[in-house]
Amino acid sequence: MKFSQAPELQTTAWLNTDQAVTLQSLRGRVVVLEAFQMLCPGCVSHSLPQAKRVAETFPPDQVAVIGLHTVFEHHEAQGSAAALKAFLHEYRIGFPVGIDAPVDGGGPPRTMRAFNMQGTPTLVLLDRQGRIRKQMFGREDDLRLGAEIMALLNDAAHAGNGGADEHPATDGCDDSGCPVKPG
Amino acid sequence: MKFSQAPELQTTAWLNTDQAVTLQSLRGRVVVLEAFQMLCPGCVSHSLPQAKRVAETFPPDQVAVIGLHTVFEHHEAQGSAAALKAFLHEYRIGFPVGIDAPVDGGGPPRTMRAFNMQGTPTLVLLDRQGRIRKQMFGREDDLRLGAEIMALLNDAAHAGNGGADEHPATDGCDDSGCPVKPG
Amino acid sequence: MKFSQAPELQTTAWLNTDQAVTLQSLRGRVVVLEAFQMLCPGCVSHSLPQAKRVAETFPPDQVAVIGLHTVFEHHEAQGSAAALKAFLHEYRIGFPVGIDAPVDGGGPPRTMRAFNMQGTPTLVLLDRQGRIRKQMFGREDDLRLGAEIMALLNDAAHAGNGGADEHPATDGCDDSGCPVKPG
Amino acid sequence: MKFSQAPELQTTAWLNTDQAVTLQSLRGRVVVLEAFQMLCPGCVSHSLPQAKRVAETFPPDQVAVIGLHTVFEHHEAQGSAAALKAFLHEYRIGFPVGIDAPVDGGGPPRTMRAFNMQGTPTLVLLDRQGRIRKQMFGREDDLRLGAEIMALLNDAAHAGNGGADEHPATDGCDDSGCPVKPG
Repeated sequence: MKFSQAPELQTTAWLNTDQAVTLQSLRGRVVVLEAFQMLCPGCVSHSLPQAKRVAETFPPDQVAVIGLHTVFEHHEAQGSAAALKAFLHEYRIGFPVGIDAPVDGGGPPRTMRAFNMQGTPTLVLLDRQGRIRKQMFGREDDLRLGAEIMALLNDAAHAGNGGADEHPATDGCDDSGCPVKPG
Repeated sequence: MKFSQAPELQTTAWLNTDQAVTLQSLRGRVVVLEAFQMLCPGCVSHSLPQAKRVAETFPPDQVAVIGLHTVFEHHEAQGSAAALKAFLHEYRIGFPVGIDAPVDGGGPPRTMRAFNMQGTPTLVLLDRQGRIRKQMFGREDDLRLGAEIMALLNDAAHAGNGGADEHPATDGCDDSGCPVKPG
Repeated sequence: MKFSQAPELQTTAWLNTDQAVTLQSLRGRVVVLEAFQMLCPGCVSHSLPQAKRVAETFPPDQVAVIGLHTVFEHHEAQGSAAALKAFLHEYRIGFPVGIDAPVDGGGPPRTMRAFNMQGTPTLVLLDRQGRIRKQMFGREDDLRLGAEIMALLNDAAHAGNGGADEHPATDGCDDSGCPVKPG
Repeated sequence: MKFSQAPELQTTAWLNTDQAVTLQSLRGRVVVLEAFQMLCPGCVSHSLPQAKRVAETFPPDQVAVIGLHTVFEHHEAQGSAAALKAFLHEYRIGFPVGIDAPVDGGGPPRTMRAFNMQGTPTLVLLDRQGRIRKQMFGREDDLRLGAEIMALLNDAAHAGNGGADEHPATDGCDDSGCPVKPG
């Protein structure tokens, strides 16, 4: 089986870290990338708390947890670094969070497009070689996620089921997430 | 026993309604006023869902549920009507929400000061005569709140335990809410 | 409007109390009667915790909370007073619980039949005059229940919407309860 | 590092299976053994639902989930196979459950003693060679458990942190479990 190399992150700023994070710099570690929006209920109630649990459960030199603020709607409300900083503070989110680079004309930002993410929350797992081993829009169980992270930690070489486990896109946010509107 | 008349709301705008809401206009109904901030975790996870349940449980001509966005910190992140509008949309909040009027120099806005609220969330219950019968910072149980609303509905004249059930203020937001910093 | 007088309880034993409880002896108080079975998941996860919250929220001289163990299936597993006593101990249930009197040949026990209960959990609210003001099979919200109890507390004389709010019976236990099988 | 071989199960009966299960017969698979009691609140609310999720998440030819009913108190209430059968039916538990063999004079039954379990719930993880790799009294997170199961699945040979992660025993059941009383 062949896995795709993840495209590099395209961001305008980072919070909770002194320097910009690149996927390149995380080679050798398993990466849990959580794409979210501040105003996405499924992100706030499920995915960000889960990402915090991942960061508390696995050693940081083995598993890197990073957030990506992928604003694709309500730009005026969610678009400022100040708003995101306040949000991270109030929700006690301590891992590095990048701001996905917007495109002229709005819609999904650059990294979101490069990964072809279907909405928020989207969870991406990268192996130690920086390859996409899972990409999922919506809500994942802790039990399965724990198993998948451990499988990648133990994965000296390759294997795995990888691939995208795509969720059908729906219109508007619901409990499981906020899909990008098609078209 | 004597209850205080609630001070009138001082707002700059309203959402989810065509015209500004005044407490004066709600006389004859029991009023459930929920003061909140978009970035207050206890508001998002507990108090706003509870206010939605109240609005679904009691007849609107008997119990009026209104929200009040009382931004006292992170003004740059929470201060715009656009941000609040997006928030209400994503969290499916349909009752009228007013924006508490800011004061020069920042800090708690005008209505929040007039009610002497200690932070967010703050729940205020007014009787049919517009008097404050309960004001509470933090989290209230559904069972007790249901009983208190019904007591006010049945309260032709007076009685009740009323008064504020104040929560000790802490520094920074926690699960029960975001207190105003003293001083 | 006319409300039915509740039939008297028919029990073989009581736990958490020195003497048998009768509805007659509770006149003057609002009564919250929770019919349950030890092996009913909806009773264990929802209705008994709710009954505990009711007992903690309202003054006992105004609102009497009582349980009724209405075994209509798995008699061999749930039928002993010893099993029920251990259950009440482990789940920290402190209010009086009666054991509904079985009938020869099995099936729903005597009080359950007299009230025409559809399964467990069933919640019954009696007013201060011992009349049935609500009887509901399944799960009730705290907010609504709090309001209903308070309405009965304030109800000097009559009024109320009363009546049964019946839940459609299904086959076998689910999250909302265990229905009596028809026939 | 050296891991202890698990002692064989000592049971009087099995439910949800046609034939008695032995640890010997499960060699080659990772084993998740959940020791519980029907009247242990932490077992009912947390550990048994978690065991069901494990059984649904991992392939049964790789991970065997078994329950063990380790009655060490309230024998009269929990001790019958009929009661356990009814319990498993109502809680929709489909994996094999053994009844731990009682000892004369009561107290913890034979398998519970052989494993030196501190109370219920106790979670035991065995590797493909039947060695104890984790034994924990109380509540484990899904994320960590998922990772540990996967680590054992991938563990061709040995390694692991193994060992018991013991919980301090307390008197009486609480949310995290029912400890065996010392002495």
